[in-house]
Amino acid sequence: MTSVIGPPSEFSRVRRLADRAAYDPETIYGVLEAAMIGHVGVLRDGRPVVIPMLFGRAEDDLFLHGSVASQLLRGLSAGIEVCFTATVIDGLVYARSAFHHSMNYRSVVIAGRAFPVEAQDKLSALRAIVDHITPGRWDEARPPTKAELRKTAVLRMPIAEASAKIRSAGPADDLDDLGLPVWAGVVPVMSHFGQPVDAEDLTEGIGLSPAVNRRLHAGAPRS
Amino acid sequence: MTSVIGPPSEFSRVRRLADRAAYDPETIYGVLEAAMIGHVGVLRDGRPVVIPMLFGRAEDDLFLHGSVASQLLRGLSAGIEVCFTATVIDGLVYARSAFHHSMNYRSVVIAGRAFPVEAQDKLSALRAIVDHITPGRWDEARPPTKAELRKTAVLRMPIAEASAKIRSAGPADDLDDLGLPVWAGVVPVMSHFGQPVDAEDLTEGIGLSPAVNRRLHAGAPRS
Repeated sequence: MTSVIGPPSEFSRVRRLADRAAYDPETIYGVLEAAMIGHVGVLRDGRPVVIPMLFGRAEDDLFLHGSVASQLLRGLSAGIEVCFTATVIDGLVYARSAFHHSMNYRSVVIAGRAFPVEAQDKLSALRAIVDHITPGRWDEARPPTKAELRKTAVLRMPIAEASAKIRSAGPADDLDDLGLPVWAGVVPVMSHFGQPVDAEDLTEGIGLSPAVNRRLHAGAPRS
Repeated sequence: MTSVIGPPSEFSRVRRLADRAAYDPETIYGVLEAAMIGHVGVLRDGRPVVIPMLFGRAEDDLFLHGSVASQLLRGLSAGIEVCFTATVIDGLVYARSAFHHSMNYRSVVIAGRAFPVEAQDKLSALRAIVDHITPGRWDEARPPTKAELRKTAVLRMPIAEASAKIRSAGPADDLDDLGLPVWAGVVPVMSHFGQPVDAEDLTEGIGLSPAVNRRLHAGAPRS
């Protein structure tokens, strides 16, 4: 995979438990693929604000769709500082000692600037966001009107400074604790989909969307 | 429930889709209960950083356990500005129009200052964090030694300024779109636990922890 992701800067280098860190695009984009949403940090009046957001990716651009950052961004073509973090929980890790309790997880942190997507690029950005959750859904749905596009703020964030952190292992108890009469192990955590519920006003005779059907059989998250 | 959560300030008031907002402690604490982790925003060198963290709650205090904020906090008894956000995804919402695609979710945003937990209060803070994921597990595990406590940074964040945002509904298509031949509806999303995996070095004959067993049967997330 070609990518413009550079080496970690002093800012984005993972400082703690650095053996869990990864910086290659395959790993980073794999975690993004598996996550349904991200949490986006911005500054408001000098204070940090963290908001859940839908997102999509195309090449080395992340596209964000949400409210707070969009408000802050209004009119700021120079962009705003953003930190985007996506986390997938894979398991609960139980050690003999309270100290070594942990989680298995995959997370990605992307730091940088986000810019408003210009009118002519909004369609492809929104396609990336809709198709991130359900590949192929964009082509099934009614496309946005010009008025809808005007109302929809989308941010583009070049993925230039990113790191992944992954824990995937059993408990790491101290040797002295191995003999304790305490259960230790991992409980896997997975997302799954329930049965689709038709909209109350769905026209009779319309069957489940092919894209949604494929998505259900691909499992959640798509990892 | 008694609570010190005050009315929303101009900072924490939900601005967009305000009909989805709630500020009562029952709702806010219910969402916290259902979430396994939170995403914490802090400033580093004036830039926002968002990190996934384990957390627990006791009364109107949130306890956070993680790396980055702890590093920033070192020696700062006046605390640091923090935004804590927890999100539970409940469903994917498919509308006839791309514009009205959405998610059902419950999120909580808590803004304020976080302070280092003093040595004598660390045990109860860590108990809140371990028992948040698995009630009762703290009493099963070996308690922390003094050395472990010294190595463990825990933050306390008074829950003074908090808001919840909840979407729980079918697609909200425009009237003009209801006749389109496009499937619309909701696909529920749930977390679930897999079969517990014993640690490789688990002493023969030790059965699954009662607390973990109760947790498995309570379901995930605990909502």
